[in-house]
Amino acid sequence: MKCMNKHTDTISEVVATMVQGATNWNTELTQEWLQEYVDDWVSFYRKRTADGEVASYIPILEEANRDHLGISIVGNNGMTVRSGDADIPFTIQSISKVLTFVVACMERGLSYILDRVDVEPTGGSFNSIMHLEISRVEKPFNPFVNAGAITVTSMLEGKTSDQKLEPFYELLEKMLDYRPALNVDVYESERDSSMRNRAIGYYLLETGFLESDLNVTLETYFKQCSVEITIDDLARIGMIIANDGENPANQEEIIPRQVARLAKALMLTCGMYDASGKFAAYVGVPAKSGVSGGIIALSPSRARDETLPFMSGCGIGVYGPALDDKGNSIAGIRLLRHIANQWDLSVF
Amino acid sequence: MKCMNKHTDTISEVVATMVQGATNWNTELTQEWLQEYVDDWVSFYRKRTADGEVASYIPILEEANRDHLGISIVGNNGMTVRSGDADIPFTIQSISKVLTFVVACMERGLSYILDRVDVEPTGGSFNSIMHLEISRVEKPFNPFVNAGAITVTSMLEGKTSDQKLEPFYELLEKMLDYRPALNVDVYESERDSSMRNRAIGYYLLETGFLESDLNVTLETYFKQCSVEITIDDLARIGMIIANDGENPANQEEIIPRQVARLAKALMLTCGMYDASGKFAAYVGVPAKSGVSGGIIALSPSRARDETLPFMSGCGIGVYGPALDDKGNSIAGIRLLRHIANQWDLSVF
Amino acid sequence: MKCMNKHTDTISEVVATMVQGATNWNTELTQEWLQEYVDDWVSFYRKRTADGEVASYIPILEEANRDHLGISIVGNNGMTVRSGDADIPFTIQSISKVLTFVVACMERGLSYILDRVDVEPTGGSFNSIMHLEISRVEKPFNPFVNAGAITVTSMLEGKTSDQKLEPFYELLEKMLDYRPALNVDVYESERDSSMRNRAIGYYLLETGFLESDLNVTLETYFKQCSVEITIDDLARIGMIIANDGENPANQEEIIPRQVARLAKALMLTCGMYDASGKFAAYVGVPAKSGVSGGIIALSPSRARDETLPFMSGCGIGVYGPALDDKGNSIAGIRLLRHIANQWDLSVF
Amino acid sequence: MKCMNKHTDTISEVVATMVQGATNWNTELTQEWLQEYVDDWVSFYRKRTADGEVASYIPILEEANRDHLGISIVGNNGMTVRSGDADIPFTIQSISKVLTFVVACMERGLSYILDRVDVEPTGGSFNSIMHLEISRVEKPFNPFVNAGAITVTSMLEGKTSDQKLEPFYELLEKMLDYRPALNVDVYESERDSSMRNRAIGYYLLETGFLESDLNVTLETYFKQCSVEITIDDLARIGMIIANDGENPANQEEIIPRQVARLAKALMLTCGMYDASGKFAAYVGVPAKSGVSGGIIALSPSRARDETLPFMSGCGIGVYGPALDDKGNSIAGIRLLRHIANQWDLSVF
Repeated sequence: MKCMNKHTDTISEVVATMVQGATNWNTELTQEWLQEYVDDWVSFYRKRTADGEVASYIPILEEANRDHLGISIVGNNGMTVRSGDADIPFTIQSISKVLTFVVACMERGLSYILDRVDVEPTGGSFNSIMHLEISRVEKPFNPFVNAGAITVTSMLEGKTSDQKLEPFYELLEKMLDYRPALNVDVYESERDSSMRNRAIGYYLLETGFLESDLNVTLETYFKQCSVEITIDDLARIGMIIANDGENPANQEEIIPRQVARLAKALMLTCGMYDASGKFAAYVGVPAKSGVSGGIIALSPSRARDETLPFMSGCGIGVYGPALDDKGNSIAGIRLLRHIANQWDLSVF
Repeated sequence: MKCMNKHTDTISEVVATMVQGATNWNTELTQEWLQEYVDDWVSFYRKRTADGEVASYIPILEEANRDHLGISIVGNNGMTVRSGDADIPFTIQSISKVLTFVVACMERGLSYILDRVDVEPTGGSFNSIMHLEISRVEKPFNPFVNAGAITVTSMLEGKTSDQKLEPFYELLEKMLDYRPALNVDVYESERDSSMRNRAIGYYLLETGFLESDLNVTLETYFKQCSVEITIDDLARIGMIIANDGENPANQEEIIPRQVARLAKALMLTCGMYDASGKFAAYVGVPAKSGVSGGIIALSPSRARDETLPFMSGCGIGVYGPALDDKGNSIAGIRLLRHIANQWDLSVF
Repeated sequence: MKCMNKHTDTISEVVATMVQGATNWNTELTQEWLQEYVDDWVSFYRKRTADGEVASYIPILEEANRDHLGISIVGNNGMTVRSGDADIPFTIQSISKVLTFVVACMERGLSYILDRVDVEPTGGSFNSIMHLEISRVEKPFNPFVNAGAITVTSMLEGKTSDQKLEPFYELLEKMLDYRPALNVDVYESERDSSMRNRAIGYYLLETGFLESDLNVTLETYFKQCSVEITIDDLARIGMIIANDGENPANQEEIIPRQVARLAKALMLTCGMYDASGKFAAYVGVPAKSGVSGGIIALSPSRARDETLPFMSGCGIGVYGPALDDKGNSIAGIRLLRHIANQWDLSVF
Repeated sequence: MKCMNKHTDTISEVVATMVQGATNWNTELTQEWLQEYVDDWVSFYRKRTADGEVASYIPILEEANRDHLGISIVGNNGMTVRSGDADIPFTIQSISKVLTFVVACMERGLSYILDRVDVEPTGGSFNSIMHLEISRVEKPFNPFVNAGAITVTSMLEGKTSDQKLEPFYELLEKMLDYRPALNVDVYESERDSSMRNRAIGYYLLETGFLESDLNVTLETYFKQCSVEITIDDLARIGMIIANDGENPANQEEIIPRQVARLAKALMLTCGMYDASGKFAAYVGVPAKSGVSGGIIALSPSRARDETLPFMSGCGIGVYGPALDDKGNSIAGIRLLRHIANQWDLSVF
């Protein structure tokens, strides 16, 4: 039995799993051996799904199976470990914010985007309007809260949502070698139910932040959230961002280096809603979550890993639709913490 | 002439200096050569001091020379580069928050501290009371805003401020091989002028966060802020934290590994007041600033540096008392950005 | 020369005009004599229009003539004093909030409405979303901030905006003996430009406060704001509310007594945006303003007036489109203060 | 049986007791008859004390008897009705804010005070610091929230708390014909426990609002709150304010007319903490409450009362230490509502 005996959520247990320094892993570890570990951890943390709830704010998301938990890890050498419910497709939701940010930067240039959206954590929840009003902000706090993400989406080129999303799909296709599809049911459910996002949209329109027609922007936003992917996809995207936007297999630049590195910084400081600070402290890797239960995480290629060198520059996809009260996968976040600490993935 | 010609503060200039990937440094670079570069950069960024103002909220800090700018860098191999106004002693101010957090964790255990102070960025300014009240928080946001720092100080062991600070001084002495002294004038000036901190203190007292007598806590807090150090000291402290709390010269553990790594995460997400997100994005290394104009920064030993390998695990001290409107050294932050980008120090 | 020489806006001038107690008016004052006074005061306060700005948030309102100032006063004995620009039609804007509140109470019963909208001043501006989110309110603060007014409008009976507004028009007709018309240009301008109100609407929809379809509710709201009236109309409506909803000429009950009295209380505590407290303190009568520059004010019939007995139960309409920074008619508010103090109209 | 059968706190019951217009009181009502009514009402509303809690934030206040309820009414003709627990002395607490405001205005002039404290309701709780910070206010919201009251107290003339309070005591003596005493136990309990007020004090000191030494100001503030009075005293003070500051028995001016009238306006808009709007709407008379369970209320002499003419210009004192969640006497507020509605005291 390789995993530790108890995992609870108290601070003392958090500390117990926090990285103590490299365990003396036998560097001859084969992929099979890692697989065995990960299987154990997944089955252990699956119990934590009972403490969370699937998202209810979009009706169709409630249909997810609360017990699901799956993980996919791709090293920069192509090595893959998959475990648990690894084949369930789900919608990308807020994880799309990383990609539209990347696309907008590629289309407009980094300066243009950063002039219009800040990169500061908010201390507040992802769907807050208050934080815009209370602080009389000059620009939305960051591209990963809804206000900032909708602003970024409004800056995508194109007149229609399909035009705006074409480069987003192209980027996905370049990374994944297939073109993910829109889940039309989820899209329609979001479009018809997400009143808070419409409120944010009108607020942004009134304050002059939006650069496209509001309806087109929201349509685009709801569509980008409703693209269906798998944890293998997330792992692969994460691995490419981890390697500064470059495909390590052929050195092709898919995302400009500057943009990829900025995306990693944003993921670390703002990626996990208002638990981003805790995730940075207790897990220590760039990540972004979505309310469907997905998390993309990665170990930057710069972070030296003495024990498992092929884990530098790895990407990780997690799926676990039972959420905690911040909107993050309750079991997924614990599974990531455990793996990051065991394999010493933290950038710090 | 090695440095670039223009450095302004617009987003497009920020982007221009953002890391593009390793410059092809000649790895035979000698310390002398680095010295020449750094001298150039310091003299360049010194001009930016004219855009800032020395701190005025503590009267005695206003006496600082606005034009000063100095930097000290210590590699984990002991190599040192110093430039500019490197010999001016100044008070440590908020940088002390890193050290009292470390000491409190060593005394009480990490779990005890994390149960009582959160590790989330606030999105607000360092001296905010509002953020406690508005969010009905269970615990102060993080140890680096004043509310959290005062709470941490209240958890230091001892009945008097001198008892409480003895382990703080001992830690400094262990790292620096000398015992820094209190600047009594600054201490008295802070004690007599910092009404906002007293307001925060009484607020914390009323909400039950404080674990020591308020007056003793505030006395301790004002004293810890008034310890006089130099940028060489900051660089050395930074280097030890960078190396997970270990002195690389003799492998002695000065700070427990877990605590040092958590401190680095906190510095990255919360270290630069409400510009922490921008610093993470544009500079990308753990850092902490103080209103006297000091900044401690470091490159974690895990961050691989292909070009200047001895810079992995380096510590940096900066002094530049002209501050921007967030309270960070206006020239210091730009100098750090330039160096981090040229030498590729970002963890991302 | 009857009016005082100087009227500025400093606190000391406010105090100078504050009620000192009954001037020794000759009770034989004729309407002609009052007319002469009012003419003097209007011409005096017209100069203050230069300090304000016409509303710009709805494009068409910018076309108003900033210099206009007019007043109409109707005593409960039918005596009328009119002065200045008394014949300019203008849209009723936020003053309609008083009337939709009255209509909703008549349709649904007072309890139903008060269960769903509070009657507390907010301390914030009329178009705030933040105050809903910051305070996690159970119901919008009051019917006179936009969030509360839109909620009230959603409670009007009927499926379409025209059905919903029919009783509103009927009430106006009963009070005015004619049916005011919608200013279609203003309505379309509001409908197409008021993004903040749409943001509020979606926020209310998401939090479950709205009782009708959002688009119908907003259409109704924009229409109710765009009804065109004159200051004579406002004076007459004010006079009826002043007399507890009864037409003093024939004792007909137009508005239920309870509703009329509650409306007066709301006007006093919440009627003048975030200057309501100052208006209560310095003028002391129930009033409601709108961004087109109208103000309705009244002296409750209960307030004994020793000097000008026929002024108990009077209604006042003011028009002056130059606004102060709170959104109130800058000259109108001063003119009202002067008259209320000279004629001792304050309820206190 | 004269009182109605059921009194609950739902909105529909509030409405049921809301003023419907003058009951047909026999104007020959003797004091004895009124007494009988009031006795009935007091015994009825005493049951509501079970729904409240005595104040706990100052330890000594917890010793109050939760079941107590008493009322004293003084007409401007000297007629008195007393009922229930009318002889319990209690500390004046926040009701003192009315009197220090009056004294400060008498000492400094109204303009001076109004330049430094606003007269706007806040929408927030009485002990909020957030509202100062969030709104970047130029001056505290009003003299009846703690921040404004402490600011007013700092403006009282004198170097020591006793010097500052001498005119406050003199005013009380002039109105009551005796000099109330400080309850030293309560004073010491407040002084030693009210950390929130100290936090507010330091906040005000830092923002430059305070005009006296902070410790002297707080000492004065805690003393003014700890003066012991009875409901007869409150009724008499209320009656004098109701009559514009004049003793109706001998026409002596005790409080300048302007100041008395402004105090009444402030009581109506800001007197009952964050239930002030509801009190204005449902009761409709100027009032001020304190956390010891006292309420001072009054019917302005201008408010005509057709049925009980001697009730125009009456003052009312209530004591009922069981508080609701806003800090107001839970039974007292209902008793006042009932009486105001039955006797038609509302100013509206």
